[in-house]
Amino acid sequence: MHQLEKNSGLYTDYYELTMAQGYYLSNRHLKPACFDYFFRSLPYGGGFVTFAGLSSVLDLIENFSFGQDDLEYLQSLGFKENFIRYLKGFSFQGSIWSVKEGEIIFPYEPVLRVEGSILEAQLLETLLLNFLNFESLIATKASRMRWAAGNRVLLEFGLRRAQGMGGIHATKAAMSGGFNKTSNVYSARLFGLEGSGTMAHSWVQCFDDELKAFRTYANWYPDDCVLLVDTFNTLESGIPNAIIVGRELIQNGHKLKAIRLDSGDLTYLSKKARKILDEAGLQEVKIVASNQLDEFIIQSLLYQGAPIDIFGVGTSLVTGNPDAALDGVYKLSYFDGKATIKVSENIAKMTLPGIKNIDRFITRENQFHADGISFRDEPGYSAIYHLTEPKKHQLGENLTKEPLMHQMMKDGKRMSPAPHPRDIASYNFKRLEQLPEEHKRFLNPQTYLTGITEQVMHVRDHLSGQFLKKFS
Amino acid sequence: MHQLEKNSGLYTDYYELTMAQGYYLSNRHLKPACFDYFFRSLPYGGGFVTFAGLSSVLDLIENFSFGQDDLEYLQSLGFKENFIRYLKGFSFQGSIWSVKEGEIIFPYEPVLRVEGSILEAQLLETLLLNFLNFESLIATKASRMRWAAGNRVLLEFGLRRAQGMGGIHATKAAMSGGFNKTSNVYSARLFGLEGSGTMAHSWVQCFDDELKAFRTYANWYPDDCVLLVDTFNTLESGIPNAIIVGRELIQNGHKLKAIRLDSGDLTYLSKKARKILDEAGLQEVKIVASNQLDEFIIQSLLYQGAPIDIFGVGTSLVTGNPDAALDGVYKLSYFDGKATIKVSENIAKMTLPGIKNIDRFITRENQFHADGISFRDEPGYSAIYHLTEPKKHQLGENLTKEPLMHQMMKDGKRMSPAPHPRDIASYNFKRLEQLPEEHKRFLNPQTYLTGITEQVMHVRDHLSGQFLKKFS
Repeated sequence: MHQLEKNSGLYTDYYELTMAQGYYLSNRHLKPACFDYFFRSLPYGGGFVTFAGLSSVLDLIENFSFGQDDLEYLQSLGFKENFIRYLKGFSFQGSIWSVKEGEIIFPYEPVLRVEGSILEAQLLETLLLNFLNFESLIATKASRMRWAAGNRVLLEFGLRRAQGMGGIHATKAAMSGGFNKTSNVYSARLFGLEGSGTMAHSWVQCFDDELKAFRTYANWYPDDCVLLVDTFNTLESGIPNAIIVGRELIQNGHKLKAIRLDSGDLTYLSKKARKILDEAGLQEVKIVASNQLDEFIIQSLLYQGAPIDIFGVGTSLVTGNPDAALDGVYKLSYFDGKATIKVSENIAKMTLPGIKNIDRFITRENQFHADGISFRDEPGYSAIYHLTEPKKHQLGENLTKEPLMHQMMKDGKRMSPAPHPRDIASYNFKRLEQLPEEHKRFLNPQTYLTGITEQVMHVRDHLSGQFLKKFS
Repeated sequence: MHQLEKNSGLYTDYYELTMAQGYYLSNRHLKPACFDYFFRSLPYGGGFVTFAGLSSVLDLIENFSFGQDDLEYLQSLGFKENFIRYLKGFSFQGSIWSVKEGEIIFPYEPVLRVEGSILEAQLLETLLLNFLNFESLIATKASRMRWAAGNRVLLEFGLRRAQGMGGIHATKAAMSGGFNKTSNVYSARLFGLEGSGTMAHSWVQCFDDELKAFRTYANWYPDDCVLLVDTFNTLESGIPNAIIVGRELIQNGHKLKAIRLDSGDLTYLSKKARKILDEAGLQEVKIVASNQLDEFIIQSLLYQGAPIDIFGVGTSLVTGNPDAALDGVYKLSYFDGKATIKVSENIAKMTLPGIKNIDRFITRENQFHADGISFRDEPGYSAIYHLTEPKKHQLGENLTKEPLMHQMMKDGKRMSPAPHPRDIASYNFKRLEQLPEEHKRFLNPQTYLTGITEQVMHVRDHLSGQFLKKFS
């Protein structure tokens, strides 16, 4: 268990606490409210986002509380005694509805909603945004690499370039998006993931020569030996020495697992390496490639026919480079019996009012066709309307409607245990297969159709009209 | 104290542990070694980096250990009993030399070195890289904004978009680079920083009208009231309502602190707002601006004469957008009595061998002139040589030589307590003033001159020549 799970009350923005105290002192704190989580921009120039971070958030919310030292700290900042007494007994008692972790989601979809008193729902904002934005960003990157890599093995080893302790959940999210193993021992243990590691150049530098370095490693790890072959010269030294050690391992009843290429032209070197290894009778030795990889490079390497079995990815995966953040927001949609919106002169920045669900329409070929957003209590769909243009889309025949929102928390308690990241990844991959190719391509993907019902559109336009009229 | 300080042994890459076990089983683990930390590429297209993360790293190293459950976990992975017994009593007993936290540093400079046994120095790699790379990335971003903002107030409020728990040290690093206050309550408490917070749109949405929302907030926070004026219409509604509340506060012996603009054209709106506030007799009410700011926008706003007193910055600061990572590495430079290098066909990727110091040459005008890298035991400099081209630079007369490396840890213990981020920022600003303008400009900054002594060059070329000859 990482520390926040025991002590998450202060993992928040200062204004959440000043607002919470303001609601409390004004005796408005128990009024019912609903907040939506949604994002606006697709990262990586892509066509979809993999939703992740839900299980982290539910764990943290279930244990959200203020310890005695937290309360003393708040008192030292001038928070009032009766409010601090209230926080002392605080726990979240509301409900959370959400799409499943690993679901494929699209901009403006209210994929998670928190229902509770205004105070409790407000207090969760920062924590919820922090984890959902980050894990979804990284899981999306991982999903893209998984899609590019087919069934090859993907290793995450980004901790040294991760954003501080962000590396802890980066690893989890990478696994939720389809990575197989991680170098990060801390997260492997915390989340029950499979660890993996080879050797660094420094190992080779510590011996008088490369062959001795390889032999020593193979001696201690005869069944888990991956040799890094580029310290001096990949083709002239690294691979020939690996072959010597590989043959010695076979003589002793073991098997060299793989060689790792970490520099140079990976296509050229992997083809050469494969040929040399095969000719030496080491057909079963795998080739690991690393060095500044991302989904574009993986796709390109495979397109060129590089015989790489295992990809090791660091920086771009764990930081989501070149997109450092998913722009998810948490907006009030309902307060004290009434639907509410945040108006904006830009209709795309207007929020959607009321308590809403999302449904996905699936074709007979089991492919995603479109998503619809309706009020929770609406009976069905006749058509959906484009979010920002008043364009109507008829929903054709032969579509199956699949409700995407599920209750994840009730009265502050999870409805079911957290899924393992491996199971999130399986679900994610199944859903990726249902997403038509044109939304998955890396270059200029087609925009997926998400629309709102006529009723949602009318309530939004009515509420915003009231404000915009007032100031026009 | 955050959790890693108690339990950092597993916060590492798997291969550090397999290599450590390999050194141990081969009985090489106590041989003396030295590793250098340095980075290669300047982030943000800029001309310098602010070195940060040192105090985090020293704290973590001083407490680096393996708990009983860590050891049981390693045992379950197949690590050997005698190695696990060794880890049980493990603590770092070596030395660390480094430039000061807040120092201005440049590519390829070995700004930190770890001296110890190969096992202990190797084990620290991932943790050290993780924190130095990240905090330096963020502190550099903050320094750039501080330089752009002059003496205006800078608020950090990025936790909701931070990379998971990376937000904890992002806040610390932002303060080390010159930010004044943070919204992040967790980090404010952990590092003794000043917190700050205003209100969200949701506060305004929870009242029947904006004026009532403002009045209620002012009632509870009469001396710390910052009103968010863009929920409905900044000029027609937000500012007029803020003026009503500002006057009421004065009547009651208080003062409206500020208004916050969070959308629209910040130059236009801040100029308009300043005029309206001044005409209403509220000259002392400050203007806070936020919304996707970075150093370029801050510079542009001020160049246009926007009368903004306080900038609030989130995403780009805490994630280092558009550069998600500093590419710092940790390379073996000395082992068992001998200087060592990692060779490469690319001379810029070759490491510098041996145990080295850095000196800075300062002009009579107290400006940085150049940095020199020498072996620790060299007596002085006659000239320095460009790192990648065999170009010699004479060091002129009238330069003062300032040694940059200081011993920070001895026998595993810090030499002095951690400085407060505020003091790191003061030092950083002083050093920024010493850095000539041409290295500080945001667009196409001039490259700062860093060179090596003739002796370092000779040893590097001799060692690499041995390898390159062998395979040519």
